[in-house]
Amino acid sequence: MSTPLQAAIASIAEETDTLLAALLPDPELAGDERCLVEAMRYATLGAGKRFRPFLVVAATLACSGVRQRALHVGAAIECIHAYSLIHDDLPAMDDDDLRRGRPTVHKAFDEATAILAGDALQAYAFQILAMPETHPDPEVRIRLSSGLARAAGALGMCGGQALDIAASQAERDMGWIIRMQRLKTGALIAFSCEAGALLSESVEHRRSALLSYGLDIGMAFQIADDLLDIEGNEEEVGKRLSKDTEQGKGTLPVVMGIEVAREYADMLVKQAVAKLDLFGPNADLLREAALFSLQRRN
Amino acid sequence: MSTPLQAAIASIAEETDTLLAALLPDPELAGDERCLVEAMRYATLGAGKRFRPFLVVAATLACSGVRQRALHVGAAIECIHAYSLIHDDLPAMDDDDLRRGRPTVHKAFDEATAILAGDALQAYAFQILAMPETHPDPEVRIRLSSGLARAAGALGMCGGQALDIAASQAERDMGWIIRMQRLKTGALIAFSCEAGALLSESVEHRRSALLSYGLDIGMAFQIADDLLDIEGNEEEVGKRLSKDTEQGKGTLPVVMGIEVAREYADMLVKQAVAKLDLFGPNADLLREAALFSLQRRN
Repeated sequence: MSTPLQAAIASIAEETDTLLAALLPDPELAGDERCLVEAMRYATLGAGKRFRPFLVVAATLACSGVRQRALHVGAAIECIHAYSLIHDDLPAMDDDDLRRGRPTVHKAFDEATAILAGDALQAYAFQILAMPETHPDPEVRIRLSSGLARAAGALGMCGGQALDIAASQAERDMGWIIRMQRLKTGALIAFSCEAGALLSESVEHRRSALLSYGLDIGMAFQIADDLLDIEGNEEEVGKRLSKDTEQGKGTLPVVMGIEVAREYADMLVKQAVAKLDLFGPNADLLREAALFSLQRRN
Repeated sequence: MSTPLQAAIASIAEETDTLLAALLPDPELAGDERCLVEAMRYATLGAGKRFRPFLVVAATLACSGVRQRALHVGAAIECIHAYSLIHDDLPAMDDDDLRRGRPTVHKAFDEATAILAGDALQAYAFQILAMPETHPDPEVRIRLSSGLARAAGALGMCGGQALDIAASQAERDMGWIIRMQRLKTGALIAFSCEAGALLSESVEHRRSALLSYGLDIGMAFQIADDLLDIEGNEEEVGKRLSKDTEQGKGTLPVVMGIEVAREYADMLVKQAVAKLDLFGPNADLLREAALFSLQRRN
């Protein structure tokens, strides 16, 4: 028996897969650049949890928006997420061979194709957002595009990754880690929530409530990830574990201690849920998702 | 004494530099991700010819559009162009140490920073296009965004680069080279021209005339580049020459012979200029630019 949350997660993941498979360029139609299109599809289709599309849909439902439009935005965000994983896995970055239980893109293809597939996926995200299916009003589409660019760029995801690769061990104190994670993973997760308000042209305080909710649960999920990295079972999680610990990279559970990190995540989740009060029962999925972050096993 | 074309080129290059310097994130304000922002600025400011911004402005003037908006679009396209050069120069791609007479980004910084600076510049291009300064009508901005995403993505610039790195020597016949160049450099140059029509909400046949003009002169410029690569003076051009020839990569002058390639470029320029008839004297800058492509020395 699955809970309503599990059923919603599974259904949104399936719909996102179907939509991405339809939206992404078809390798049958591509010429000699087939390899590039295959790498884009390999990285994007199949094994993702579709956490960000789930958040877009749940936040859109909280604002009484249109589900199909939310799926479109979710697909665009997945393209950005997938590209960031491809580039993060490269030898010059984290140098990972395995991702979601499969060879990383530069292992399954080659480095040059991996760089290009990431680049092309980023462009494709903005192409998806520009489609009328995303929202009939061009003003909404351009706001989404601007928000995604900001969340993905130098003052968001890319900035966080730059911080992560540049900092010395000594710099990695609690404040630094929180700032880095907010940029590296928090910005895109927060935008996924904010997009629900943008899509339904909600009033400003709803937009900012969803943004804050996203930043809090983004951090809570990251702590859950880091705890899994320390305590989890490699087979269950599907990627090489304890890598951050091996490399001496600070994570909140390492710096704060496991118990304090767990309490901090608990506090973040309560704070996130409190932001949802103004949405009433429409935000139930978002509430359950926040609580779920504390019990993650993979 | 400079010709009106040279004066226009110099002025647009200067205005583009000033605009990009103001638009790009400020390293003084960035935190520990300063290095990323510095790499983005290093790659984008300083040494570019600003050929694409020139085309946007000239095409916008041909359509009686607003010059300042064209400069904004030109700045966005330069971010895409700069990111593509950073990534093309990486060791896994063309492995170049020198670009525009300066160390490439992965030499001046490091590989990880180069990958991220390229990624962040691509995001920034879409952020610039989304600004109201680009055009007051959001529908125009989203059309520009869609067009840029298409030109930069798998069926444009990235697709062309994928073709270029994947093909064997045997495949590199005339038809293959023309298709590859159309994608790798032609798509973005053609979009630069098309943007003039999009910005001024011109009728469809003006948009398609500028697009065709762009494809033709893009190819003519590429041939001029390839001829310089064979005949040019390394110091004058500011990059390592004859690299394509060394690596046995086919270019049109190599495959067709120098004289036939020159005739082909001449034909392309005539064809491009013919497309401008419907714009009258407003298109004089575009006409002169086309003719100039035949006399390039750097």
